[in-house]
Amino acid sequence: MSQTTNQSWGGRFSEPTDAFVERFTASVIFDQRLAHQDIQGSIAHATMLARIGVLTGDEREAIVQGLTEIRSEIDNGEFEWSVPLEDVHMNIEARLTQKIGIIGKKLHTGRSRNDQVATDIRLFMRDAVDVIEGELIRLREGLVELADREADTIMPGFTHLQTAQPVTFGHHLLAWQEMLARDHERLLDCRKRINVLPLGAAALAGTTYPIDRHMTAELLGFTRPAENSLDAVSDRDFAIEFTSVASLLLMHLSRMSEELVLWTSAQFDFIDLPDRFCTGSSIMPQKKNPDVPELVRGKTGRVYGHLISLLTLMKSQPLAYNKDNQEDKEPLFDAVDTVRDCLKAFADMIPAIEPKKANMFEAARKGFSTATDLADYLVRNGVAFRDAHEIVGQSVAYGLKEEKDLSEMSLEELQQFSGSINADVFEVLTLEGSVAARNHIGGTAPDQVRAAAQRAREVLHTLKDQL
Amino acid sequence: MSQTTNQSWGGRFSEPTDAFVERFTASVIFDQRLAHQDIQGSIAHATMLARIGVLTGDEREAIVQGLTEIRSEIDNGEFEWSVPLEDVHMNIEARLTQKIGIIGKKLHTGRSRNDQVATDIRLFMRDAVDVIEGELIRLREGLVELADREADTIMPGFTHLQTAQPVTFGHHLLAWQEMLARDHERLLDCRKRINVLPLGAAALAGTTYPIDRHMTAELLGFTRPAENSLDAVSDRDFAIEFTSVASLLLMHLSRMSEELVLWTSAQFDFIDLPDRFCTGSSIMPQKKNPDVPELVRGKTGRVYGHLISLLTLMKSQPLAYNKDNQEDKEPLFDAVDTVRDCLKAFADMIPAIEPKKANMFEAARKGFSTATDLADYLVRNGVAFRDAHEIVGQSVAYGLKEEKDLSEMSLEELQQFSGSINADVFEVLTLEGSVAARNHIGGTAPDQVRAAAQRAREVLHTLKDQL
Amino acid sequence: MSQTTNQSWGGRFSEPTDAFVERFTASVIFDQRLAHQDIQGSIAHATMLARIGVLTGDEREAIVQGLTEIRSEIDNGEFEWSVPLEDVHMNIEARLTQKIGIIGKKLHTGRSRNDQVATDIRLFMRDAVDVIEGELIRLREGLVELADREADTIMPGFTHLQTAQPVTFGHHLLAWQEMLARDHERLLDCRKRINVLPLGAAALAGTTYPIDRHMTAELLGFTRPAENSLDAVSDRDFAIEFTSVASLLLMHLSRMSEELVLWTSAQFDFIDLPDRFCTGSSIMPQKKNPDVPELVRGKTGRVYGHLISLLTLMKSQPLAYNKDNQEDKEPLFDAVDTVRDCLKAFADMIPAIEPKKANMFEAARKGFSTATDLADYLVRNGVAFRDAHEIVGQSVAYGLKEEKDLSEMSLEELQQFSGSINADVFEVLTLEGSVAARNHIGGTAPDQVRAAAQRAREVLHTLKDQL
Amino acid sequence: MSQTTNQSWGGRFSEPTDAFVERFTASVIFDQRLAHQDIQGSIAHATMLARIGVLTGDEREAIVQGLTEIRSEIDNGEFEWSVPLEDVHMNIEARLTQKIGIIGKKLHTGRSRNDQVATDIRLFMRDAVDVIEGELIRLREGLVELADREADTIMPGFTHLQTAQPVTFGHHLLAWQEMLARDHERLLDCRKRINVLPLGAAALAGTTYPIDRHMTAELLGFTRPAENSLDAVSDRDFAIEFTSVASLLLMHLSRMSEELVLWTSAQFDFIDLPDRFCTGSSIMPQKKNPDVPELVRGKTGRVYGHLISLLTLMKSQPLAYNKDNQEDKEPLFDAVDTVRDCLKAFADMIPAIEPKKANMFEAARKGFSTATDLADYLVRNGVAFRDAHEIVGQSVAYGLKEEKDLSEMSLEELQQFSGSINADVFEVLTLEGSVAARNHIGGTAPDQVRAAAQRAREVLHTLKDQL
Repeated sequence: MSQTTNQSWGGRFSEPTDAFVERFTASVIFDQRLAHQDIQGSIAHATMLARIGVLTGDEREAIVQGLTEIRSEIDNGEFEWSVPLEDVHMNIEARLTQKIGIIGKKLHTGRSRNDQVATDIRLFMRDAVDVIEGELIRLREGLVELADREADTIMPGFTHLQTAQPVTFGHHLLAWQEMLARDHERLLDCRKRINVLPLGAAALAGTTYPIDRHMTAELLGFTRPAENSLDAVSDRDFAIEFTSVASLLLMHLSRMSEELVLWTSAQFDFIDLPDRFCTGSSIMPQKKNPDVPELVRGKTGRVYGHLISLLTLMKSQPLAYNKDNQEDKEPLFDAVDTVRDCLKAFADMIPAIEPKKANMFEAARKGFSTATDLADYLVRNGVAFRDAHEIVGQSVAYGLKEEKDLSEMSLEELQQFSGSINADVFEVLTLEGSVAARNHIGGTAPDQVRAAAQRAREVLHTLKDQL
Repeated sequence: MSQTTNQSWGGRFSEPTDAFVERFTASVIFDQRLAHQDIQGSIAHATMLARIGVLTGDEREAIVQGLTEIRSEIDNGEFEWSVPLEDVHMNIEARLTQKIGIIGKKLHTGRSRNDQVATDIRLFMRDAVDVIEGELIRLREGLVELADREADTIMPGFTHLQTAQPVTFGHHLLAWQEMLARDHERLLDCRKRINVLPLGAAALAGTTYPIDRHMTAELLGFTRPAENSLDAVSDRDFAIEFTSVASLLLMHLSRMSEELVLWTSAQFDFIDLPDRFCTGSSIMPQKKNPDVPELVRGKTGRVYGHLISLLTLMKSQPLAYNKDNQEDKEPLFDAVDTVRDCLKAFADMIPAIEPKKANMFEAARKGFSTATDLADYLVRNGVAFRDAHEIVGQSVAYGLKEEKDLSEMSLEELQQFSGSINADVFEVLTLEGSVAARNHIGGTAPDQVRAAAQRAREVLHTLKDQL
Repeated sequence: MSQTTNQSWGGRFSEPTDAFVERFTASVIFDQRLAHQDIQGSIAHATMLARIGVLTGDEREAIVQGLTEIRSEIDNGEFEWSVPLEDVHMNIEARLTQKIGIIGKKLHTGRSRNDQVATDIRLFMRDAVDVIEGELIRLREGLVELADREADTIMPGFTHLQTAQPVTFGHHLLAWQEMLARDHERLLDCRKRINVLPLGAAALAGTTYPIDRHMTAELLGFTRPAENSLDAVSDRDFAIEFTSVASLLLMHLSRMSEELVLWTSAQFDFIDLPDRFCTGSSIMPQKKNPDVPELVRGKTGRVYGHLISLLTLMKSQPLAYNKDNQEDKEPLFDAVDTVRDCLKAFADMIPAIEPKKANMFEAARKGFSTATDLADYLVRNGVAFRDAHEIVGQSVAYGLKEEKDLSEMSLEELQQFSGSINADVFEVLTLEGSVAARNHIGGTAPDQVRAAAQRAREVLHTLKDQL
Repeated sequence: MSQTTNQSWGGRFSEPTDAFVERFTASVIFDQRLAHQDIQGSIAHATMLARIGVLTGDEREAIVQGLTEIRSEIDNGEFEWSVPLEDVHMNIEARLTQKIGIIGKKLHTGRSRNDQVATDIRLFMRDAVDVIEGELIRLREGLVELADREADTIMPGFTHLQTAQPVTFGHHLLAWQEMLARDHERLLDCRKRINVLPLGAAALAGTTYPIDRHMTAELLGFTRPAENSLDAVSDRDFAIEFTSVASLLLMHLSRMSEELVLWTSAQFDFIDLPDRFCTGSSIMPQKKNPDVPELVRGKTGRVYGHLISLLTLMKSQPLAYNKDNQEDKEPLFDAVDTVRDCLKAFADMIPAIEPKKANMFEAARKGFSTATDLADYLVRNGVAFRDAHEIVGQSVAYGLKEEKDLSEMSLEELQQFSGSINADVFEVLTLEGSVAARNHIGGTAPDQVRAAAQRAREVLHTLKDQL
């Protein structure tokens, strides 16, 4: 049983909190991670209170000095976190009062833990988004450079995991880059909605002190104060939005991971991952496992789960703040860490991928991957598309039976399916001809890939300037 | 067993599709909903093909004429949908060829079902977003007007479902409006990413025809062609983003619903919902059930579920198109319908809410809701905040024992807890004084509520101009 | 606006339901699927009411006769479903009263729609479980027979999608069968909890009529009446449990699907799926896509989504019945259909799989898959396991450099890594020797596979006897 | 960069693991929680190896002695966990080899980390289920005893949160107990499937050593060895099944929590929760917040999220083990902790609930809660049910207008709606008469509640005997 809990709200209570309940309901074990943001917010609040005359200049100085010392104590691991003090806010305030006496208690004037914690989380998320954006840019740059380098490297393009048409490896990498570009956009859209100040909402209705919320917003770099106090303390949609952005990002990374795992298999053997991104087996000495992409693929579930946690958490909650919301932090913190680490791992790994060009080319050569080119050839020679499709289908059936690719058949063999096939058909049946022919924006032709890489490079340049 | 399936891809196959498999893998039962968009996309594609010389003007005319007739047949319920023809695309193309002969087959030049369906869905989603936005604006307007009307109506503000501080009903309604404002922003951010043209990606690699994708984009009102063909046919992140926006929206509606259900209970009795939004009981004749908010609350799960469906669907899918993606449509269609209907139900219902002002006021009067005001009063009289909290806590404990609200105690009773309490204390213990004192941006003071309503009205005005 | 709605509960209402609200809140569009079960439940209820004297024998006869006719009308498509009559229950009751007059109204004595619908769903789910179980047994049998046939067929076993050790194809198929065996157990465990009678709970508290719930339970084949009326009408945990069983089942099918898709790729080329389970491409005539496994893999998301829908639906619902629960049916119906169809598709497809044994064997031969066997050989010759692992690791590194499998190295080459290697090493480096040596329960040795198949066959025999 | 990682699998690698990758892919930070189970499994494995002659008795002794010492070191916090050693298994093995030399390396004979970790998790989960079952029984007992005590306490029963019919508080509590009874059944069904031995599956295919898996199973208390080695190392369905059982349990607790929060509100005021389960507000001294039920309600999302994490994790994973599966532990551990703590909090809190009987009774008295009784009365007097419903509906409409409950109307007032109403009607309009009349199994009559409590008590007695 704790006697200390009565410090912040015990006056009305006749019985101390049960020891297990105290631990069960305390958040300090995980919300101490908000300490820097809590202090940052408190300093801005104290500064505003001083400017409107609620605190004297000296009082503000003492508070800022005390909080700065506390930050050092925390950074140096000297701060003693107390579970009976419930959360990061009360821990810091109690220490402040210990340090500077009665003045410390004045810091809480015109605010409540409800708007305080909402402010802390938003500051934390803003910082987190910025770190994540840095890793995302690094990954996108790695993809663009590798794509540019591999703009001419031919590999099979798959649909239904069946060989469909030849594409270039650079083109494939830029598909990944495009996915991430949209994730990046979503991240910045989410940041706009994070960057709004709850402080001043107090418990739920605002405060009777003549606070200046625009000033606090400016001091903390927020674009504006939140428009409604009830909403400001109760909603967590920005947190859910972040986890949904994170879920899409991990979804995309899971797709890349799946392909990397396939490509490193003996059956595909399209790429080599450097040893430092792999691990081995305790029982099978020959194994070199693509651990990083596998693990990232596995972490997808983690982030999807956090999204569902937060959506469930907020479902049907009446206004304004409910204790349920204490559960918002752990999923959010873990989503932030997971996204950051997965992006970092990929940003480190992608530039180190070594394509096995001969294997890629050989895989594309087999599997009738230029069948569409034959169909297009027929159409250009006056055959209706659907009829051309039928002709090529018969050629492929013949090739499967005879174990010959289209380019391996003789002109006579090909002509048994259509009189519109001439000797020039063999030009369109080469892989190089096939990819070069898809020469429009978005197409796989090497020139298009290089042009797309250049456009992406410029976009990234602009984004970095705005960081 | 169906013989017709060989029409589009049967050439290579030696055995017809199993009848159950044919039904199991067909999508026409649900994707016929894309018929309008499919025709719209085909007309634009034909127009582009004519301009680049792949079709003659006459061929284009015949195609447009045929498709226009087919659209009428569909609208009039005269079109015969065929399961063996698999999907909306093949059904329409087969009918077109029936109507205009061999020319109909030329329409598919330079495209594939993969980019065709991606285009159809994006056109459908753009339309859907616009309809949803209309209902959302209507709902937001209803909230703003009701809030303005009820800017002075006092009710208890709750935290932990315990009476916390008095707020105004208008302020509470504007908290709802703020939630929806962010949903609205997210919807428009999502629309940006929907409005990009996949057509021209063909199966996955682009096409060998000299297509003009910028022209097609312009004809269909897309902002630009997609940058990468592999990405264009394979990703569905815009669909997931929409369901995540929809999930947040339903989360917010579930919170409003929860409060409406609480408020119509005999215990709260804060509002009356007109009979037309309620139903009765087959066994308990006295019941008047708040069906609409309950049902909307229940539909939250539906939309969360669709979000998980789509996230799961895309997890670990290798590029480019896989058959899995056929499963993207039903969740998406149902999410669109659910969001639209729930918003419509709320937009109709909200303006019809009748607050029971006396009950709201009385509930706020009880429950020591001006305790914070007493604390602030003490602080203004020189007591430190944390000490003031303690003093008020003791007053409340006394009040609970004596069954007296703070405003019902005599000055002598109050003064036993602090010498800093004087006769002017009773001014701050009134509900009207309490709400009026929270007079800063975001606060619950009636003047602030009216100002916030006016700002919201202007924002909505601008948004409607952009529709 | 509908005037008919007042039939069941309109007495207290002064205003008819809004037309959109009527449609929005009606369930008859989807709950008409419960018609058979509704009639079945009503007949049992009427029979019980007659036995306890609340209905006369003639009244019961008239009701049973009327309901039987209505069932025929429904089966023949002659029944006119009415949205203003809200749901399947009121539609049938209204038609009954139309047919047999005032007696029809007596059927609702001692029950409510709340316990009626709970009973209907449980009857429906019991039927659904039985159908699903039939397909599941068929699929398991197909796997067991194929496994028995392929007990000697060698393929690579993978971890991390890297070749690990040789296994038999039969062993791999039995791994799938074991997954399904647990799903089967879970299905039967769930059925126990479905098979309990809610009827008699009435609206929520029971009824004042002297009903005999044990009799009704017996008439409907339920094991017992539900113990608590509030619980009986309000909980839907059996529905959630079913969707969680279904989710695990689809998870398992998604794993099988993933492997089937891999195995039909040109890179693996381990099996052939008959054409009737595949479809082709509209643009690439050479494609033969594994549509069925891809689609089943995609449907995993659908069922996971339904699970989340139902979990979200029930979260935080106060007792007893709330309108939210109307949302329980569509996800449940779709989960039932999806599971049944996916199992049927697999049960049809699995026996038709044609392994390409030579490709499987060749893939196992490469990739150092007997490295563990070499390690075990070393240990048997006195080397500590971890040291043996190191020795084999060096051999593999050498093999990778020299492009030689372990079995392709000379004795001299092998001996440079350890003096404990002798000429008999080549016996353990064969694939046949490797699999045969894993000869314990659960191991991949062909004899173990055949024995496991026989045990599974006997279990299935017993299960079929209990159907 | 770490040099130590090559200890278990480094032989084939030319480059050490990247330092960030090493941390990113290591699991020891969280899987050290499996240390006890890992040692327990190793001791059984060593014992079996000794019995089949692979180890000598002395070797086994040394291993057991070493592991026992290591367990002490861990329990005393003296063990130094190393991230470069990746996981709990390698950490313990490395320490063992440090202690007892080369013999320590022999422990890994005939097993792999793949079957080792699968065994550890199953042992851990079996222990966890047993602890959870203990708390569940304690909670169920608390509910049964409170229900028995409150079998006569009348409160309103709600549907749609509208007063429906009077029920007893004991009846309501037993509805909760029934929910938990099914959760309990599911937990035990899940335990059956947990309690199967994976060890002996080795990496994926079994081992070439003549192991005796039945012996190991017996030593560890498992019912049998797993039937298939590939399945044994790769599936985690038992973990998902546990989280789905946990999700249903939390769903039920969220429903109880919602009601507890409602009941402690000023508007309902049905119960009092002792102070030790509540906390206060930092700004509003009068608040007493029902923290424990709110927090439990919030934790529902956490467990739902873990369920989705694990379902996503396993979706589409090819056999056998993939690195993805490292992600199975954290969600599972947290689900275990959350379920245990929430049950403990409820088991402590429920017996301490103090019903405010007068408030409950008064709430039931209002709101026309005996309307159904009036309808039943009319039916007994010969009026058809649907007509009776109409008559009562009109009476209620009149009562609403006149602000009179049914029992407050005069006989004349009642008779204006039906000639079948006589003076004895007032007997059925009392709350006591209403509840007592629902006197059948499952009904709310006090005698039925007491009988149901007695049956539940006996079931719990049997369950405790089996613990």
